[in-house]
Amino acid sequence: MSEQTATNLTQDLVVNGVNVTQLIDTVGLIKENADIADFKFRATNKWINGGHNRSEINEYHGALQEMSRDEAFVMDNDEPPVLLGQDNGANPVEYVLHALAGCMTTTMVYKAALLGIKLEEVESELEGDLDLRGFLEMSDDVRNGYKNIRVNFKVKAEGAPERLKQLEKLCMGSPVFDIVTNPVPVTITVNEK
Amino acid sequence: MSEQTATNLTQDLVVNGVNVTQLIDTVGLIKENADIADFKFRATNKWINGGHNRSEINEYHGALQEMSRDEAFVMDNDEPPVLLGQDNGANPVEYVLHALAGCMTTTMVYKAALLGIKLEEVESELEGDLDLRGFLEMSDDVRNGYKNIRVNFKVKAEGAPERLKQLEKLCMGSPVFDIVTNPVPVTITVNEK
Repeated sequence: MSEQTATNLTQDLVVNGVNVTQLIDTVGLIKENADIADFKFRATNKWINGGHNRSEINEYHGALQEMSRDEAFVMDNDEPPVLLGQDNGANPVEYVLHALAGCMTTTMVYKAALLGIKLEEVESELEGDLDLRGFLEMSDDVRNGYKNIRVNFKVKAEGAPERLKQLEKLCMGSPVFDIVTNPVPVTITVNEK
Repeated sequence: MSEQTATNLTQDLVVNGVNVTQLIDTVGLIKENADIADFKFRATNKWINGGHNRSEINEYHGALQEMSRDEAFVMDNDEPPVLLGQDNGANPVEYVLHALAGCMTTTMVYKAALLGIKLEEVESELEGDLDLRGFLEMSDDVRNGYKNIRVNFKVKAEGAPERLKQLEKLCMGSPVFDIVTNPVPVTITVNEK
């Protein structure tokens, strides 16, 4: 495996840490068989107490096979004391900001790599407005989730500032940006344990 | 602080690890001053390399003040090798499942506590379908994010199975459920660093 990686690195085009050769090869394979593009991501979660619960993330389906990591990623949700928790972890709406930041960044980095745009630094600050009256069912006019989210990037890139508008457009191709800005159908079952 | 907590525990009604007395008090305070309900959650993120980036989450605004934890929560996004990463962390769309699982669980737990429904165990399994052709701009008919998400809960609760439909309805009041199933406006700026 390490030998193969070393071989790849000497032969393949790598921009922004992204193996562009492999990315283009993937597109070619998907053109021949669209099923390669079907991914299923998964999480399991267990309630611990109050606002504290823990997820494990490992297996997923992609590229026609079941895949797994050596070890599961483990992450905790909790609430701060003002929301009746004990700060054992970030809270779920904060994790949404993490996911959004990361996905928009990765999308910018990958798509810039495909276009040959070299990035040196990408940083972002996110802020979301949430009115607790939604969750507490105190007003029909207030939604439960974020009313809006602001994402502010600072980028050091070859050819900036002319590139900035282009990079802004690129990062809007992010899967989590789509999930947050557009409706995703969610089906729920609750069974007895 | 610990003395106050101890006093609270002897006087307050606590169900499912949730201080119901404090929750009801919070609702009363918000009725008098809606600004108490205005929360702003935040994240900062830095790109590391390729699909690897890192968020820090700490400060937030809520209950009329700026709040912070003793230490920031730090979390990494990466992609698996099949998506050109190195598995330094779960990927952003997997974090969305973690956030959704945690938020629906916490919402079920808090709202059940308010109704006096005692829960013993709550577990969930989530799966989301994502077609990579969206991200790769290979088809206009394929969205970038999840096509759909399935959330399957197993609950051990007082009075189940009669309660299961009620619990299903309760967890749909989750802020992240709202964020995922309905559009959230996101504004983006990209400036030079």
